[in-house]
Amino acid sequence: MNTDRIQLAHGGGGQLTTELITEVIVPILGGQDVAVMTDAAVLDMPPGRVALTTDSYVVQPLEFPGGDIGKLAVCGTVNDLSVCGAIPVALTMGLVLQEGLEIARLKRVLSSAAAAAETAGVRIVTGDTKVVGRDACDGMTINTAGVGTLMPAASLGFDHIAAGDRVIVSGPLGEHGLAVMSKRKGLSFTAELESDCAPLNELTTTLVESFADEVRFMRDPTRGGLAATLAEISTSANVDVEIVQASIPVNRTVRAAGEMLGLDLMTVANEGKLVTIVAPDAAEQAVAILRKHAIAREASIIGTIVDTSEHPIVELVTKAGGRRVIQMPYGEQLPRIC
Amino acid sequence: MNTDRIQLAHGGGGQLTTELITEVIVPILGGQDVAVMTDAAVLDMPPGRVALTTDSYVVQPLEFPGGDIGKLAVCGTVNDLSVCGAIPVALTMGLVLQEGLEIARLKRVLSSAAAAAETAGVRIVTGDTKVVGRDACDGMTINTAGVGTLMPAASLGFDHIAAGDRVIVSGPLGEHGLAVMSKRKGLSFTAELESDCAPLNELTTTLVESFADEVRFMRDPTRGGLAATLAEISTSANVDVEIVQASIPVNRTVRAAGEMLGLDLMTVANEGKLVTIVAPDAAEQAVAILRKHAIAREASIIGTIVDTSEHPIVELVTKAGGRRVIQMPYGEQLPRIC
Repeated sequence: MNTDRIQLAHGGGGQLTTELITEVIVPILGGQDVAVMTDAAVLDMPPGRVALTTDSYVVQPLEFPGGDIGKLAVCGTVNDLSVCGAIPVALTMGLVLQEGLEIARLKRVLSSAAAAAETAGVRIVTGDTKVVGRDACDGMTINTAGVGTLMPAASLGFDHIAAGDRVIVSGPLGEHGLAVMSKRKGLSFTAELESDCAPLNELTTTLVESFADEVRFMRDPTRGGLAATLAEISTSANVDVEIVQASIPVNRTVRAAGEMLGLDLMTVANEGKLVTIVAPDAAEQAVAILRKHAIAREASIIGTIVDTSEHPIVELVTKAGGRRVIQMPYGEQLPRIC
Repeated sequence: MNTDRIQLAHGGGGQLTTELITEVIVPILGGQDVAVMTDAAVLDMPPGRVALTTDSYVVQPLEFPGGDIGKLAVCGTVNDLSVCGAIPVALTMGLVLQEGLEIARLKRVLSSAAAAAETAGVRIVTGDTKVVGRDACDGMTINTAGVGTLMPAASLGFDHIAAGDRVIVSGPLGEHGLAVMSKRKGLSFTAELESDCAPLNELTTTLVESFADEVRFMRDPTRGGLAATLAEISTSANVDVEIVQASIPVNRTVRAAGEMLGLDLMTVANEGKLVTIVAPDAAEQAVAILRKHAIAREASIIGTIVDTSEHPIVELVTKAGGRRVIQMPYGEQLPRIC
């Protein structure tokens, strides 16, 4: 029997399943603490309200510059908790593995997930493993769910957004989407093109602790990119938003890759960026605080909530001084990006 | 554009994703309460320790007699929480949908999930939806994660199991596995062959409230069946277990189907059965309490923890009076059963 690859039998619930879990998965994800990977984990949650989220990850290819599906699965769920003002506490990990997947690759992905969890200060406390046939999956998919405790100081929501508030983005757009697409299409560039995939909880915690009421709303602009995030803010808060193109940080290589692939960076997924709506008086200081963090050195104020509106729109003031409406992307621009 | 089937564009994070979520998924899972399906849900958890679990579901076919992947995904995660002594509070639901999946089928599966959640008294509070191409999935997979609060009275664990304790099963074995396999293979029988898929939280709560200390351990014998559950108990608690074949409840049609397919019912998955280890004095009463519930009318004492052991085994006393060792199943007997 080939022991280098996942077999259907690894999913049968018998001895081989136990071996895969106790010899491959738990040592990487759970360290020495085997008890953490039983069917259900027991948590001593800090007191307070609990945030709960989930995401499934189907990215192709599984490994790409700057990350892989394991890192993505941890960061994505950490970030969903973070932007709603929660401190991430624990994650679950559900693996669906394709028959024939190299176990060495599984180990790389799990190691990457474990490293991301350590960076974010969360534990992967319980999991599940299923195996499907060769036609039923592309290597693997991962689902992570996460629980966190809401920071009592956090006071966030679409209804907190008011005219005059500033729009801040924590760094250059489009890195994740273009790193994945370039890898998929076999493109190479003279400069590095890496996914920005990173946990945002340090940024969000710092912002909430520093400002509380002045931070109105936070979101990570993933699928659909900044365009989808701003369109949702505009529609849900009933406000017009004005964004200044010249203020949006963009990496030159990413811009070149976007032009080559015909992609608008406003609609490309990010996996380590934060969009924050902040009260006008606090905006400059919020940017200064963000820039102290390695993943937010280029944080910038990129626009303003200009007014409440019955027919809300997002407008981009172009470098040439023109105006363009930013719409919610319709459908599929970048498949399997997360 | 074909609006009867899932398109890749439904997974792009744009307007079509929003439409799928707000017009198809949320009305079924979240009723009128649209806010429950945002990226993260906020829970006011009752005080106490929190149990967290996850399972991914890859069953084929997606719909089978007695259930479907939606019902299974809710019951399975409710049951993982229940058997560790927790009261299930909330579930997440991560959908991975195949391009071309009929939306009518998705609606049936989600309606079934919603009905199971209502039966179990839990809410599906947040979710995620991804779409993959036609070669990358068989219709759909579902991941559910669940949180619950541990019942303070529950005092469960392998280390609570002692010689003399009785082994109780809540009803006939093998119904889920054989209903799914028969459907897959196109077999039909004169009598109904239906999955036992059901939430167990009413049974587990009743047992813990009635006995507390006398209930030593609970488990739902899913993949690997009763054989895997007993082997795990034996190995983890370092005890010998003796099971009496004549005491194990089995449905006649299930037995016939098992014989036709060459399957040992001891190793076939159940999705609505409870295995409980109970102190000797409480066993008869525990069975009487279980039998008051519609899903446990045939609850029976099927064996005994005979001794602690350095080389623990599970033995079956056959109807002919012989003895057979029950081993942990090795690998894959029934693929894609849950």
